[in-house]
Amino acid sequence: MVRNISEIEKSFINYVKKMSSYNEAISLMYWDLRTGAPKKGVEQRSETIGTLSTDVFNMSVSEEMGEYLQALSNPEVKGEISNITKKLVEECKRDYEKNKKIPPEEYKEFVILTSKAETIWEEAKEKADFNSFAPYLEKIVAYLRKYVERIGYEGNKYNALLDDYEPGITVEVLDRVFGELREKLVPLVKAVTESPKQPHTDFLFEHFPKEKQQGFSSELLRQLQYDFEAGRLDTTVHPFAIAINRNDVRVTTKYDEKDFRTAIFGTIHECGHALYEQNISEDLIGTPLCDGTSMGIHESQSLFCENFVGRNFSFWKKNYQLLKEYSGEQFEDVSLEDYYKAINVAGPSLIRIEADEMTYSLHIILRYEIEKALINGEIEVKDLPEIWNDKMEEYLGIRPSHDGEGVLQDVHWAGGSFGYFPSYALGYIYAAQMKNEMDKDITNFDQLLDEGNFTPIKQWLITNIHQYGKMKQPLEIIKDITGEGLEPKYLISYLEKKYKEVYEL
Amino acid sequence: MVRNISEIEKSFINYVKKMSSYNEAISLMYWDLRTGAPKKGVEQRSETIGTLSTDVFNMSVSEEMGEYLQALSNPEVKGEISNITKKLVEECKRDYEKNKKIPPEEYKEFVILTSKAETIWEEAKEKADFNSFAPYLEKIVAYLRKYVERIGYEGNKYNALLDDYEPGITVEVLDRVFGELREKLVPLVKAVTESPKQPHTDFLFEHFPKEKQQGFSSELLRQLQYDFEAGRLDTTVHPFAIAINRNDVRVTTKYDEKDFRTAIFGTIHECGHALYEQNISEDLIGTPLCDGTSMGIHESQSLFCENFVGRNFSFWKKNYQLLKEYSGEQFEDVSLEDYYKAINVAGPSLIRIEADEMTYSLHIILRYEIEKALINGEIEVKDLPEIWNDKMEEYLGIRPSHDGEGVLQDVHWAGGSFGYFPSYALGYIYAAQMKNEMDKDITNFDQLLDEGNFTPIKQWLITNIHQYGKMKQPLEIIKDITGEGLEPKYLISYLEKKYKEVYEL
Repeated sequence: MVRNISEIEKSFINYVKKMSSYNEAISLMYWDLRTGAPKKGVEQRSETIGTLSTDVFNMSVSEEMGEYLQALSNPEVKGEISNITKKLVEECKRDYEKNKKIPPEEYKEFVILTSKAETIWEEAKEKADFNSFAPYLEKIVAYLRKYVERIGYEGNKYNALLDDYEPGITVEVLDRVFGELREKLVPLVKAVTESPKQPHTDFLFEHFPKEKQQGFSSELLRQLQYDFEAGRLDTTVHPFAIAINRNDVRVTTKYDEKDFRTAIFGTIHECGHALYEQNISEDLIGTPLCDGTSMGIHESQSLFCENFVGRNFSFWKKNYQLLKEYSGEQFEDVSLEDYYKAINVAGPSLIRIEADEMTYSLHIILRYEIEKALINGEIEVKDLPEIWNDKMEEYLGIRPSHDGEGVLQDVHWAGGSFGYFPSYALGYIYAAQMKNEMDKDITNFDQLLDEGNFTPIKQWLITNIHQYGKMKQPLEIIKDITGEGLEPKYLISYLEKKYKEVYEL
Repeated sequence: MVRNISEIEKSFINYVKKMSSYNEAISLMYWDLRTGAPKKGVEQRSETIGTLSTDVFNMSVSEEMGEYLQALSNPEVKGEISNITKKLVEECKRDYEKNKKIPPEEYKEFVILTSKAETIWEEAKEKADFNSFAPYLEKIVAYLRKYVERIGYEGNKYNALLDDYEPGITVEVLDRVFGELREKLVPLVKAVTESPKQPHTDFLFEHFPKEKQQGFSSELLRQLQYDFEAGRLDTTVHPFAIAINRNDVRVTTKYDEKDFRTAIFGTIHECGHALYEQNISEDLIGTPLCDGTSMGIHESQSLFCENFVGRNFSFWKKNYQLLKEYSGEQFEDVSLEDYYKAINVAGPSLIRIEADEMTYSLHIILRYEIEKALINGEIEVKDLPEIWNDKMEEYLGIRPSHDGEGVLQDVHWAGGSFGYFPSYALGYIYAAQMKNEMDKDITNFDQLLDEGNFTPIKQWLITNIHQYGKMKQPLEIIKDITGEGLEPKYLISYLEKKYKEVYEL
């Protein structure tokens, strides 16, 4: 049966929409597991998630997919198909070629290995016992070294892993950019640590009832134009944002009654992720392109909200009174200026997820250097604790007292997610590049925050980033906005300026 | 490739488990839509539900399914396959043969029609405007008349529809049973209505804060041994219980601060459904047999809890003090005896879902008679309002003042669910038959409730009903417990006894 190209196109779109539907069901199950699914049902739920995930994987490498890709990537038909289809073909082809190279049995074994490793890691972390976790990590690294060879790479082997999370970013780029960043941040951290002008922070840690924090968090979400008709706010152990579909983007947060910052800045952070997903072009709804383009660009949106908005003086000029209304007497005798300094306190710390915006990237650079060396066989798993601790001392001037607060602190490696960490630092760099450019278009940014008028800012983000979903690659977004590639100098000068002010350097 | 029978059996089990996985995902989406999914995401979610439902339907009639059924229902292999597989084959064959007879396009059109009809019905009900709904109902009835011919039937045409909800139950059975019931209930209703000893009920309608009702509802669920580690309690507009999987069975309830009975008896009712699903044999987990065997048997479990337990004097001997602790001063001056009479108040009313246990079956019998006549072409849609109102007057002595509280009150017909209503009355009849038999095994039923010891009662239900899931047909369950077929006399004598006591007849 000969079919014309528009029939094939239509049928291909339906095919990928079906894959998206399966992913939508998986996302809801994931959200539900974290927001209160009864524990006895988890085992069976995991089976169901496994079934649907396997369906999606199989569809990505099926004969039918192969035929669509062949028919639709024929240069002769390029003029006849829509831009969306072209991009879909590109994305699906990428996955098709990659997934085809992985023997399904091996992949399945790896999934089982990492799921087991995550359980082992949890206990190892608690007991600060690296040796019990090491054999699992060794197997994971062995798989990934083999994976890299199967998938193929240009230049450094680690590029194959980077490509899974941040297409276009390579070791060659990161070595330069992270090198520059490290060089400037290490002395900044030192200066901040040694400054005699440390902000007062004791007032941050008073009792702030959960319900009040919840009310204030919701209020901030509304101010930042999170659409509650296309989302909801829940409570989880680890905060996250998840797009179940484009019009159902949920955020969660965590309440610490002795440190309100966890919830407030956590909520603003997740709001940034959610705004991205809620504002992707409607044309992409139901397709795999209706998603953030990469982990790094996603993180740029959450960090933009958290830091450039949420830690901005004018934002609190507008909101400090409101915070006081929710918190009772906690900030009664604290001036806005002192409050602002307190929420921008920075300094070396051992745990990545508790790090401030000045030191955060150094935590990432450390991990990046270790991952790269591991994948390239330059170091081995058994060497990790010492390497980790040495680097902590070199970059941040502090040394973990045990592996639980050192090399064992994050779950990523247990889950097999090598190549993921760099996205976090990329998020900071991208965000600073975007902000630098936004300042040219929106010359009264601080004034808008002071007025509580977030609309022009959000609109700028939609126009330049959100709307595209996966229609543009990460570096394409950055290039189209700034005319440049990845460039760390904007982040550096932002951080230097801010901390010179806060710490009166 | 020749495969041996145990390979085919294994592969068949995996195939049906996959269908169950899809249904698990659909159930979670359904629950989520009713407990707080953001409204803008609903459209896309419906697509996803549609995709998965179509998958399940397609799998039920696929060539692969046909081959499994042929191989496994071969009489020569019966000795080689497990009892579970045999039953699965039976169930799948039923669906296969039925679904094969429905042209997919026609079915899809029907789904669209009913989904539209439900929206139209909602408005029609509110405006009490039957004429705007009638054209849709006419199409639905026309489809069903055709459906019945396609599917085939023995005896009455309506049997084809009954078979979808309550396999084994036929018009021949129902005419006898419902006839007997109607004959006895109509005079009972009259006697109750005319009794000079009407219970006082004014104290039922005082303000009872939602949070307190929630606390008491949870407490009762715990007492009735609902497993909160395999479920959770939420709030919805219409209460329901749903088994997402066997170890994740959720209940919802609704709180009316001016009538606590809605939540309390609603929760006990849904608890009965949930206990059934939570206690199906673990051997059936993940298969389509891990489900209540029919709507009627399911309803027998919820009604058993609601009425035989929840409206029992001894149950409140145990719990009245607790209720008072939750409710504040509401029942301060009300004796247990007066409270008991008040929660057993009965009498004619227009709305089925608000009816008491004495009149409920009459609401159902009325619907049954109308459905049967419609499907057999003895009456037409346009005649419904008058027929409805006449029957209401005949059976209950009251006449709706408009169709919103008459023929338009329920959504079932708009959804195309003809043949469903009888299950509700069957639930009452089954429950009374079971209770009659339980009394022989458990001679101290009231004493157990008084002691708050629900274990032997629950164990009896597990042993005789719950554990089997779909391994037994409804009438097989009843026969194995009672040695009889469907028999209304136990319900009749239970109701006569109870209302003679409450109304001092």
